[in-house]
Amino acid sequence: MDVSQLGEFGLIERLTRIVGAEGSPDLIVGPGDDAAVWRVGSEYLIATTDAMIEGVHFLPERARWQDVGWKALAANLSDIAAMGGTPLFALVTLALPPETPAESMDALYSGLGEAAREHSVIIAGGDVVRAPQVSVTVALMGRATQRDGEPLVLRRSTARPGDIIAVTGTLGDSAAGLRLLKAGAATDPIVQRHTRPVARIAAGRAAVGAGLRCGIDVSDGLLQDVGHVCEMSNAGAVLRAADLPLSDGLLAAFPDDALELACTGGEDYELLVIGAEAAVSRVPDVTVIGEIVEGPPRAMLVDSDGSEIKFANAGWDAFRS
Amino acid sequence: MDVSQLGEFGLIERLTRIVGAEGSPDLIVGPGDDAAVWRVGSEYLIATTDAMIEGVHFLPERARWQDVGWKALAANLSDIAAMGGTPLFALVTLALPPETPAESMDALYSGLGEAAREHSVIIAGGDVVRAPQVSVTVALMGRATQRDGEPLVLRRSTARPGDIIAVTGTLGDSAAGLRLLKAGAATDPIVQRHTRPVARIAAGRAAVGAGLRCGIDVSDGLLQDVGHVCEMSNAGAVLRAADLPLSDGLLAAFPDDALELACTGGEDYELLVIGAEAAVSRVPDVTVIGEIVEGPPRAMLVDSDGSEIKFANAGWDAFRS
Repeated sequence: MDVSQLGEFGLIERLTRIVGAEGSPDLIVGPGDDAAVWRVGSEYLIATTDAMIEGVHFLPERARWQDVGWKALAANLSDIAAMGGTPLFALVTLALPPETPAESMDALYSGLGEAAREHSVIIAGGDVVRAPQVSVTVALMGRATQRDGEPLVLRRSTARPGDIIAVTGTLGDSAAGLRLLKAGAATDPIVQRHTRPVARIAAGRAAVGAGLRCGIDVSDGLLQDVGHVCEMSNAGAVLRAADLPLSDGLLAAFPDDALELACTGGEDYELLVIGAEAAVSRVPDVTVIGEIVEGPPRAMLVDSDGSEIKFANAGWDAFRS
Repeated sequence: MDVSQLGEFGLIERLTRIVGAEGSPDLIVGPGDDAAVWRVGSEYLIATTDAMIEGVHFLPERARWQDVGWKALAANLSDIAAMGGTPLFALVTLALPPETPAESMDALYSGLGEAAREHSVIIAGGDVVRAPQVSVTVALMGRATQRDGEPLVLRRSTARPGDIIAVTGTLGDSAAGLRLLKAGAATDPIVQRHTRPVARIAAGRAAVGAGLRCGIDVSDGLLQDVGHVCEMSNAGAVLRAADLPLSDGLLAAFPDDALELACTGGEDYELLVIGAEAAVSRVPDVTVIGEIVEGPPRAMLVDSDGSEIKFANAGWDAFRS
């Protein structure tokens, strides 16, 4: 059997079982969430990693190297946001062919540095290796928000029937931006949502401060990411199509596909927060889009009549997309 | 200019300047050492990362996947050893083509798991992405040894003229093992030094406990790694060829090249400790091989007459080797 038959999530589950993750009382959150949480003395460290591969996550003929650097850190920042934490420092592994122009890598690191300064993140080290194509792998460490010595984090496994689901910003813009970029419309403002995503660090902290304990970032596509919460929480979710926040730019550029892009497009890096209505209402600038329900662990999108809307594209899978 | 003209170390210096590493009082050791050290409350975290790329660091037709997994963690463990610390938890990024057999990745993770259990390291998370070839990037976090609230670490920048240089184990076995492996002698015991290196965690801790503050692991080749210490400490080093610890296996397999393999072969993952003679003598099972001297920042190998011995191969460089 090859890994494309298992799919990304089947493979992760299989490999996680092989290495195990038991055996330390300091491991607070292990594999399967947006990031790991580890106790260090009286603090709780959040650790996450994310890789971008040339030809898979970006095409050098289309992407600017600055944007590749920015996005490599932004994807990791979003994982820290999805735990309600504060980013601290990063390690960067750069793999590249010997014939790569040094100026391209200067540009990549300048974009990385921009994203780092924006969030007071320090690039503390890394590794440089030879490879047939460029890739950037970032490991980002952060600090969990604490109260009375306990870590306050957003988990995927803590949704309960009756909880409200809300999301920051607007959905589908990154996928729309990628389409416009492919069509040569690189100056459209929506393209920036794809090339320069901004992680929702402040919203994540506001969510844990408001008492929420469930959340995930929208990186694989809304339906799939809510689906991850459903699986980990063993509950269903209903999302109302009419309530999804769609930007004017998205609606203008792709009026017919806006809903599908919002539900299945990846890399929005918006934050989903899930919990009691009173707590959700204390998080600024989020839109309520649905709720957690009893039932099979999957996310269902419904129209105003309550009928399910389905799309052919289920969202990002590393080996099937 | 392309990166092969800069070389690995020129590129690292250039990119480090671009992102900078200033701005946090919590950054205790930044880029340029074996690992970063970051203050978390009253603890000091050590963080390092290392990547292994198919076709560059291993050849699938020659390496067993179990060994690739073991070595991916071992290289990182060696960086923690080179800081005198204790490893805690790792994040693993696996990049691979969709057609990779799942069984190969099972084997890779079982080797990784073996190395992890050997050192009580927890695999706390990671990322799985698609790529044209397999690579494994590990980010490993550890805890620095402490005394009276201060971190005790081995740096590259703290060697002083008059310091003694000592090394654990024997040198050159990994390079010899690789040669034997290439020649088809996979069952020779020395091959295991290449496929299953063991990081010197206990020696690193013993070194900082003995009062030493300078060290590095032998990953790029003895002369080059001592050279890194020379550059960072702005001092010279003299290594005595007659005193280098060479294994019987190495001498038997490659009597003519043993010295060169010991001086320029990479991936021994032995530990170099450097400091006052009295402190070095308190570290068990090390061999004194030379000393730090005044002079230009480079490592010089000498024979028993004091004449310099030079080799054509200067040691590992990611873009020149």
